[in-house]
Amino acid sequence: MAICSAHTTTSLHSPCATVSNTGFRQKQVIFFTSNRRSGRRHGGARTFQVSCSVEKPVVIGLAADSGCGKSTFMRRLTSVFGGAAEPPKGGNPDSNTLISDTTTVICLDDYHSLDRTGRKEKGVTALDPRANNFDLMYEQVKAIKEGQAIEKPIYNHVTGLLDPPEVITPPKIFVIEGLHPMFDERVRDLLDFSIYLDISDEVKFAWKIQRDMAERGHSLESIQASIEARKPDFDAFIDPQKQYADAVIEVLPTQLIPDDNEGKVLRVKLIMKEGVKHFNPVYLFDEGSSISWVPCGRKLTCSYPGIKFAYGPDTYFGHEVSVLEMDGQFDRLDELIYVESHLSNLSTKFYGEVTQQMLKHADFPGSNNGTGLFQTIVGLKIRDLYEQIVAERADAPAEAAKV
Amino acid sequence: MAICSAHTTTSLHSPCATVSNTGFRQKQVIFFTSNRRSGRRHGGARTFQVSCSVEKPVVIGLAADSGCGKSTFMRRLTSVFGGAAEPPKGGNPDSNTLISDTTTVICLDDYHSLDRTGRKEKGVTALDPRANNFDLMYEQVKAIKEGQAIEKPIYNHVTGLLDPPEVITPPKIFVIEGLHPMFDERVRDLLDFSIYLDISDEVKFAWKIQRDMAERGHSLESIQASIEARKPDFDAFIDPQKQYADAVIEVLPTQLIPDDNEGKVLRVKLIMKEGVKHFNPVYLFDEGSSISWVPCGRKLTCSYPGIKFAYGPDTYFGHEVSVLEMDGQFDRLDELIYVESHLSNLSTKFYGEVTQQMLKHADFPGSNNGTGLFQTIVGLKIRDLYEQIVAERADAPAEAAKV
Repeated sequence: MAICSAHTTTSLHSPCATVSNTGFRQKQVIFFTSNRRSGRRHGGARTFQVSCSVEKPVVIGLAADSGCGKSTFMRRLTSVFGGAAEPPKGGNPDSNTLISDTTTVICLDDYHSLDRTGRKEKGVTALDPRANNFDLMYEQVKAIKEGQAIEKPIYNHVTGLLDPPEVITPPKIFVIEGLHPMFDERVRDLLDFSIYLDISDEVKFAWKIQRDMAERGHSLESIQASIEARKPDFDAFIDPQKQYADAVIEVLPTQLIPDDNEGKVLRVKLIMKEGVKHFNPVYLFDEGSSISWVPCGRKLTCSYPGIKFAYGPDTYFGHEVSVLEMDGQFDRLDELIYVESHLSNLSTKFYGEVTQQMLKHADFPGSNNGTGLFQTIVGLKIRDLYEQIVAERADAPAEAAKV
Repeated sequence: MAICSAHTTTSLHSPCATVSNTGFRQKQVIFFTSNRRSGRRHGGARTFQVSCSVEKPVVIGLAADSGCGKSTFMRRLTSVFGGAAEPPKGGNPDSNTLISDTTTVICLDDYHSLDRTGRKEKGVTALDPRANNFDLMYEQVKAIKEGQAIEKPIYNHVTGLLDPPEVITPPKIFVIEGLHPMFDERVRDLLDFSIYLDISDEVKFAWKIQRDMAERGHSLESIQASIEARKPDFDAFIDPQKQYADAVIEVLPTQLIPDDNEGKVLRVKLIMKEGVKHFNPVYLFDEGSSISWVPCGRKLTCSYPGIKFAYGPDTYFGHEVSVLEMDGQFDRLDELIYVESHLSNLSTKFYGEVTQQMLKHADFPGSNNGTGLFQTIVGLKIRDLYEQIVAERADAPAEAAKV
């Protein structure tokens, strides 16, 4: 333990971290899947005490409806943490998991207890908690958090079936993304940080039309029907999770264009909970004041409809929050670096890191608006949170040794 | 000249400046008053070339309607420049002039060519250019600017008569305040900096009621009638001067209280012309952007209706300007120092100087709102302008000597 602790650093790119990742292959795997359909059960938890603290992942929850840009968000996050995220090598090609040097992202659809046929039979949607195995979700997230590998089921989105499980070893940062990361209180309590992607109905509709009509050939009516069919369960089981989120990214129609219903220009809010350990909200100009800022003027000439930022304190489900808002979109790099230079508490490692990240993924959806900007910022805040936790763990034995 | 220049410093409190002020008593006095009623005429200009550049005053014009807080403004200005302003010692007790260590303020009413009776006879108001001697105003301001003393007439506000003239020697800063400092193009061209105090009709009415009803026992009807009687001449001769001002202080009713007509809470704008030599507009957070700022939040708890600042670029009579706006009023010192700490280009000599000045004169009208704040800021900007001009003059012979 002391040797490993001595290696622990506050950097995601520490040599210790690499060693511990590799070292993990020799450890025992915890697999206890409960699969209603296949009936397979791989026995109870065989716990294995992992003593090296750096191997205990920081666990992040990301909640959002399907098709709301979670995968883009994940690619932005893992890019900030370092390295590209890819599906597990040599495994199930339909795996929903993404693995990078530092981060493993699992999709909570893998904890569906009912497959597509099962849901149809029972008349429940995937949003319904009855279609999901929260006991298993809790046990496996807990195991990972304690540094133990798991055998996680795979929900095959192509076939709609539950495929044989895959082994997941504890990464530095473990992200659970999907419909219900904050639904179950036990799972919620395991999260070191949680994010809710809140897409307004107007924008969700515009996006679904673009994706499902243009790319998948669905009809307008069928899209409308599918949204409406999901809405009761969404409102009952998904939406209420946002009250637990440490950060909410809210995507709304622009207010810069009167009566806009195109959904192309977006107003995006980053709602940051106050008083969250290791998380210091970003602010604009003056922490705790209410500010609006139109950077287009003498220094920047933004094209129509321009860009407008707002920042200020607020309450959100009874919690004190700070809200940063961006309406409009960037035309050019100099606008982005100018905005970055006026934001504080960004947790960047060098001047211009936000801009660099945004440029690196200029082809990702939302790179010219608040969704990309705030996803990138959340990535930086999580990296910072991770590094603070690791530093704290590294200090803890040293402090103990002094006594 | 070289000796004096060597003494010139950029500080208002330089030893050279004191010497030159005292030395002035030995110089010749320029007096050429043209007084229609008395018929006195004190001969032509006997010019006296003053070689020490520091003795040539910086000339400031302040335009405003009578009873619009000019005297408070002047006391704030002279306080910033150093020393209290008092009427000339041993002179006419009804003199309109104020003299401090550094500054002489003359009232342009002294250039009335018609006294009260004369105006009545001719049926013109004091606002009418025909009631004022712009030739004399020009000649005397020019003489002062060239470092020559003058014999300036005195308009006696008590008797309504033109009293015998008083001698005015060139100060460091010469302020001409009154109805027409920017009306005559020749006088206007002599101004190094000009300010227009623009009180909206609603606020003017509320103020006049307070002063003339409460303090002077006038009736509401007579106040209304007097405002309306002045309005055509005011609109024709006074108001148009604001297009020439380098800075305008605009006083409006608050927007924080819906449908407010009490006129107690004020919204005040400081409109600063861009591209004025030696004048670098104040800004809030980000120069050239459009900003609104409510500092009441987590750090300050302002009482109802709070305080709201705004800043941004605009155009004013075809000129590019920067506008700083304050709506509401200060309750306490910490609000003021907090605001000061977020303003840039204030031209203070130390952190907190604005707050110190405001506290020093907490009993002056407008000390808790934008009028007092912006008058103080304008004072600081003029001091800075003066010091830049003096420094430039000091550098000029040194530069010439190098060639």
